[in-house]
Amino acid sequence: MDKLEMRHTLLAAKARKKMSWDDIGKAVNMSPVWVASACYGMNSASQEVAAKLCDTLGVESDVTDALVAFPTKAWDEAIPQDPFIYRLYEVVGVYGETLKDVVQEKFGDGIMSAIDFTMEVDKIEDPKGDRVLLTMNGKFLPYKSW
Amino acid sequence: MDKLEMRHTLLAAKARKKMSWDDIGKAVNMSPVWVASACYGMNSASQEVAAKLCDTLGVESDVTDALVAFPTKAWDEAIPQDPFIYRLYEVVGVYGETLKDVVQEKFGDGIMSAIDFTMEVDKIEDPKGDRVLLTMNGKFLPYKSW
Amino acid sequence: MDKLEMRHTLLAAKARKKMSWDDIGKAVNMSPVWVASACYGMNSASQEVAAKLCDTLGVESDVTDALVAFPTKAWDEAIPQDPFIYRLYEVVGVYGETLKDVVQEKFGDGIMSAIDFTMEVDKIEDPKGDRVLLTMNGKFLPYKSW
Amino acid sequence: MDKLEMRHTLLAAKARKKMSWDDIGKAVNMSPVWVASACYGMNSASQEVAAKLCDTLGVESDVTDALVAFPTKAWDEAIPQDPFIYRLYEVVGVYGETLKDVVQEKFGDGIMSAIDFTMEVDKIEDPKGDRVLLTMNGKFLPYKSW
Amino acid sequence: MDKLEMRHTLLAAKARKKMSWDDIGKAVNMSPVWVASACYGMNSASQEVAAKLCDTLGVESDVTDALVAFPTKAWDEAIPQDPFIYRLYEVVGVYGETLKDVVQEKFGDGIMSAIDFTMEVDKIEDPKGDRVLLTMNGKFLPYKSW
Amino acid sequence: MDKLEMRHTLLAAKARKKMSWDDIGKAVNMSPVWVASACYGMNSASQEVAAKLCDTLGVESDVTDALVAFPTKAWDEAIPQDPFIYRLYEVVGVYGETLKDVVQEKFGDGIMSAIDFTMEVDKIEDPKGDRVLLTMNGKFLPYKSW
Amino acid sequence: MDKLEMRHTLLAAKARKKMSWDDIGKAVNMSPVWVASACYGMNSASQEVAAKLCDTLGVESDVTDALVAFPTKAWDEAIPQDPFIYRLYEVVGVYGETLKDVVQEKFGDGIMSAIDFTMEVDKIEDPKGDRVLLTMNGKFLPYKSW
Amino acid sequence: MDKLEMRHTLLAAKARKKMSWDDIGKAVNMSPVWVASACYGMNSASQEVAAKLCDTLGVESDVTDALVAFPTKAWDEAIPQDPFIYRLYEVVGVYGETLKDVVQEKFGDGIMSAIDFTMEVDKIEDPKGDRVLLTMNGKFLPYKSW
Amino acid sequence: MDKLEMRHTLLAAKARKKMSWDDIGKAVNMSPVWVASACYGMNSASQEVAAKLCDTLGVESDVTDALVAFPTKAWDEAIPQDPFIYRLYEVVGVYGETLKDVVQEKFGDGIMSAIDFTMEVDKIEDPKGDRVLLTMNGKFLPYKSW
Amino acid sequence: MDKLEMRHTLLAAKARKKMSWDDIGKAVNMSPVWVASACYGMNSASQEVAAKLCDTLGVESDVTDALVAFPTKAWDEAIPQDPFIYRLYEVVGVYGETLKDVVQEKFGDGIMSAIDFTMEVDKIEDPKGDRVLLTMNGKFLPYKSW
Repeated sequence: MDKLEMRHTLLAAKARKKMSWDDIGKAVNMSPVWVASACYGMNSASQEVAAKLCDTLGVESDVTDALVAFPTKAWDEAIPQDPFIYRLYEVVGVYGETLKDVVQEKFGDGIMSAIDFTMEVDKIEDPKGDRVLLTMNGKFLPYKSW
Repeated sequence: MDKLEMRHTLLAAKARKKMSWDDIGKAVNMSPVWVASACYGMNSASQEVAAKLCDTLGVESDVTDALVAFPTKAWDEAIPQDPFIYRLYEVVGVYGETLKDVVQEKFGDGIMSAIDFTMEVDKIEDPKGDRVLLTMNGKFLPYKSW
Repeated sequence: MDKLEMRHTLLAAKARKKMSWDDIGKAVNMSPVWVASACYGMNSASQEVAAKLCDTLGVESDVTDALVAFPTKAWDEAIPQDPFIYRLYEVVGVYGETLKDVVQEKFGDGIMSAIDFTMEVDKIEDPKGDRVLLTMNGKFLPYKSW
Repeated sequence: MDKLEMRHTLLAAKARKKMSWDDIGKAVNMSPVWVASACYGMNSASQEVAAKLCDTLGVESDVTDALVAFPTKAWDEAIPQDPFIYRLYEVVGVYGETLKDVVQEKFGDGIMSAIDFTMEVDKIEDPKGDRVLLTMNGKFLPYKSW
Repeated sequence: MDKLEMRHTLLAAKARKKMSWDDIGKAVNMSPVWVASACYGMNSASQEVAAKLCDTLGVESDVTDALVAFPTKAWDEAIPQDPFIYRLYEVVGVYGETLKDVVQEKFGDGIMSAIDFTMEVDKIEDPKGDRVLLTMNGKFLPYKSW
Repeated sequence: MDKLEMRHTLLAAKARKKMSWDDIGKAVNMSPVWVASACYGMNSASQEVAAKLCDTLGVESDVTDALVAFPTKAWDEAIPQDPFIYRLYEVVGVYGETLKDVVQEKFGDGIMSAIDFTMEVDKIEDPKGDRVLLTMNGKFLPYKSW
Repeated sequence: MDKLEMRHTLLAAKARKKMSWDDIGKAVNMSPVWVASACYGMNSASQEVAAKLCDTLGVESDVTDALVAFPTKAWDEAIPQDPFIYRLYEVVGVYGETLKDVVQEKFGDGIMSAIDFTMEVDKIEDPKGDRVLLTMNGKFLPYKSW
Repeated sequence: MDKLEMRHTLLAAKARKKMSWDDIGKAVNMSPVWVASACYGMNSASQEVAAKLCDTLGVESDVTDALVAFPTKAWDEAIPQDPFIYRLYEVVGVYGETLKDVVQEKFGDGIMSAIDFTMEVDKIEDPKGDRVLLTMNGKFLPYKSW
Repeated sequence: MDKLEMRHTLLAAKARKKMSWDDIGKAVNMSPVWVASACYGMNSASQEVAAKLCDTLGVESDVTDALVAFPTKAWDEAIPQDPFIYRLYEVVGVYGETLKDVVQEKFGDGIMSAIDFTMEVDKIEDPKGDRVLLTMNGKFLPYKSW
Repeated sequence: MDKLEMRHTLLAAKARKKMSWDDIGKAVNMSPVWVASACYGMNSASQEVAAKLCDTLGVESDVTDALVAFPTKAWDEAIPQDPFIYRLYEVVGVYGETLKDVVQEKFGDGIMSAIDFTMEVDKIEDPKGDRVLLTMNGKFLPYKSW
């Protein structure tokens, strides 16, 4: 079973179980964003978490192996088209240089890791329209001189 | 004076004054990320904030007009090359679909606005290596049916 | 049933029923452009509208779920090739900067939303050749300072 | 004087005169969108309109020749980056196929001309947020068989 | 039956009948270039011509519907690779600007329509090597001012 | 003097002399399309024609050398943007495969040369709108087997 | 049978017969490079050569028709990736301008035809490492003035 | 002096001296193609050859250093546009796979080097039109297993 | 059996046998990186090594032929997306010019061969985080003058 | 002084001083590859190293500030063209997937850092042709689950 088939199996099971990512996250004791990314095939799970996840969603154990396998991460479009994802791309385009300057002023020459990295989504209710709160947390890696 | 010349003038003045983005943000009573984006020419400032900014950095008043002008936002590279900015692009590629699913499950069919949008940068000190905390806050816009 | 299969089912049913988009729009009490976009898989319908639509076109109820699902919007060609669609792209290329200036002069620094957005098509009969009237109506979103 | 220099001259004169596109449109008896497009170098003006325009904005008569010259229309980015213009591009991507179907159902096999074409911008005041009304009006051109 | 299947059916029938495009053009009373483009799926035929065409080539009547359907025109390669088609692309690249100037000098600011357009191919016999005569005939469309 | 400077010089002289491409073509006894292409720097002229051309337009003799030099042909945009030139590109996209089939049926496996090639532009007056007649004439080159 | 199926059939037959391109070239009295290109579907064969080729390789006669059919030449990658083919591409990039100058100095303004064109491959044994000798022979085509 | 300035200097000197590449090649005892490539900045010369070349063309000795410098080889267009160079690119596209097969059958798995590589141009006079003979000679490099 | 099917067969067999690349490398007496590249279809094996490899992994002998076949090397993405591979691409982008200068200073004008080339991977244990040691070893090829 | 001007200054000084990267590396007590990358503007130096470097090369102290500034890393070509750099790109294309598998088998799911990263170049003398030894050493970063 490859990551694509795994993803279809898991998303179908999730729909059948009528569980949200929050529900599943709680059940396997991981963050909902990470759980979703693992089900989408963009992260690998430990044997233990994979087993718990399959158990929670009631899928057969061969899905476990697919969850544990190391993914090859790829995306279809260099410039994303779906408006939800494009807006994130636009933020990187518009604010990329700004963020580099603000972060490097605070931390020195280096980058925010996208590997040693976590992310959360929250909902802020607001009578003028609810707001999405997206929190990214990445280790700062200074460039090495040698 | 166009946005590019304005940017050079403001960044040079900032270096001369040895002020950080935090310092300037406090002086003009705005967030450091927004202030940096305005100085980089990616956002327009109100007349009042622009005046305060020029005053703080000790630049001539013709810079004010450039700060107030509405920018045409653009970036050089469809796929960014600088490692700092590329990591943000990679996050969008790797987690874009995941975020769309997690957010739309919570909010319904729609997007997080990149216009009615704010962003903050914080430093979390950590003995295993400091961490960058990036917080994005955007209004949720539901798709309209008509 | 995914959006693609849904689309084939609905377009085939529409041909069988010999109904126009205007007819269908009236039957489900929505605008013909929106109805068409939902059938093409580019917008999600509410449970109620989806049910009415399936009823009107005489398709089975599993199509309802596909209509209600939140789409991932995508298009094949960064630069469209079909002459009908290319002409719209050309209008954006030729008049994009002009429209930005005219609208921002009237409304301030911001954008016309493509999410809180409606569109209509009308036919203006004219002895020298009928004319297409395309009306777009989008909420103005001012850029936030923070 | 080429179109680029003409554009800088005219936009500077407009700023100096503190006239809006509406004001200038009225003064030369043309639509504000068309006037803006001519000043941006994307349409040619008749000798008479060009002269009136230069007179209105108080620029020298050599600008007239540049306004009358036939432009080579071009835009910098196949996929626009500025959020205002990108939203229009997104509308073409998301709704292009839908519009083709709706229009061709009403008019037959053919296109909406982008040459025999006019466009207007209006502001609809709305307590929940003002709205941009964009009206495009193009001659329908049926494909020829031969 | 979609345009692709239609095309395979019609080209196979043409081979079976050993008819040239000239023969078919005569049989249906249309130009050979147009007939070929309709069979390739790049133009729609009237009900009457489609019926005559199917009759001439001895294919079943469901092909008629496919011929009558309005095509979505597309081509595989932004820059064509087959040497025959590339040479045409090269002509556009080498002579595009020249033709724009020569035509606009004769006709005013506008374009040659590719919609209200016909094309013929002729063979000029020549002892030094036969020559291809390609004749394009398109309506001139002047840009509208408004 | 390179081809670009030569082009500016010749187009300015042409404007000053108020001569059309037809006028210049007659004066140097060559076709107006070819003359225009040589002035645009897309073809080289013989010493004799170059001298006559400079004489006709009243430019200094160093332009002659630039006209005689062999050009490196190039164009800015793989997909042209100006609507006049784009329509020609669209014709190649829409009809390329059709023309290949029609021509190769008449001539055998090979191409129409874009080197041993001539082109003319004519105006057909028509009360319903004048028409552009574009005639291309290229030597047929059969593929060699060896 | 299309060119792709033909190619698989012919390459499989060649492997079965354990014949080299030299062997096959001799058997059908054509050059090995041309024979290979015809089997790869990049050139059409005459009826006679096609028949001899099918006979030599012991394949059924329907392959003959595919060999005789006029190919649409295409390649997958604008910039080739396989190191063997990339090196040829690199030679064109590094030496293209040089070759243009050297050839045009010798022959006048024009090109080397890729249609009226032959090519041979030879092996030069050398104790320091054998060498590939690639010989291209194309008709010079002078640009036409008209 | 960089390679670009060097190139302009050398080509101007060559024109002034009215020497052909053959003449210069003979004078410096190198092949005309290599000499041209060195003057175009695509190969470095030894100190001795560079000095002889400058002497032959009567240019100052600072050009010597530029000739000796190791070039960064680059070309403007991934897909060349000038018809002369495009035809070479087309040969690689059309015959690349064929050549790979023919050469690897003769030599084993490996490539023809584009570094340990020489090239010659010859003119074959022919009453039906002269022919260009292009000879490439590259060391065969077998892939290493380890 | 083509290279793709071969790859699936070999990777599945490797998983079944629970052998690492090091284990397999030892068993067939080749380097683990080379063995992996051959199993991925990016290098051809000698008859002898291929047989040993099939024997080691317990796959049928038709896989041997696929291993011996000369591959056409290709990769999906001009700019890789998986973070592991992208980091290597980034190293080439950031350090490419630097390496060219350092190597050419040491060796003269030329390149490091990617054909006569070997590569090893080692693990350096480190309490602050293990390190990957990647060693590339390529023959230096000097550019030829001729 | 920006990084580009700094680079020209430092490379000119290096040529004047006739020092190799090895010499400079020893003088400032850093690795030659890192020193070269800092002079090319691809890494920032500490205040101390920058001062020593300027001292060693005899350039003025304003170069120090440019060396200390944090660079924006960028490269001109998504696919490099110079043969030296292309070969490195080819290695990533041909062996990228292989290396990912070999490394992840040894280390787990993660990447080799290109930030916490060092690189060395060595020359291995060999009578059959000297060899380039390129050693990359990057920290392994495991993907985080959260």
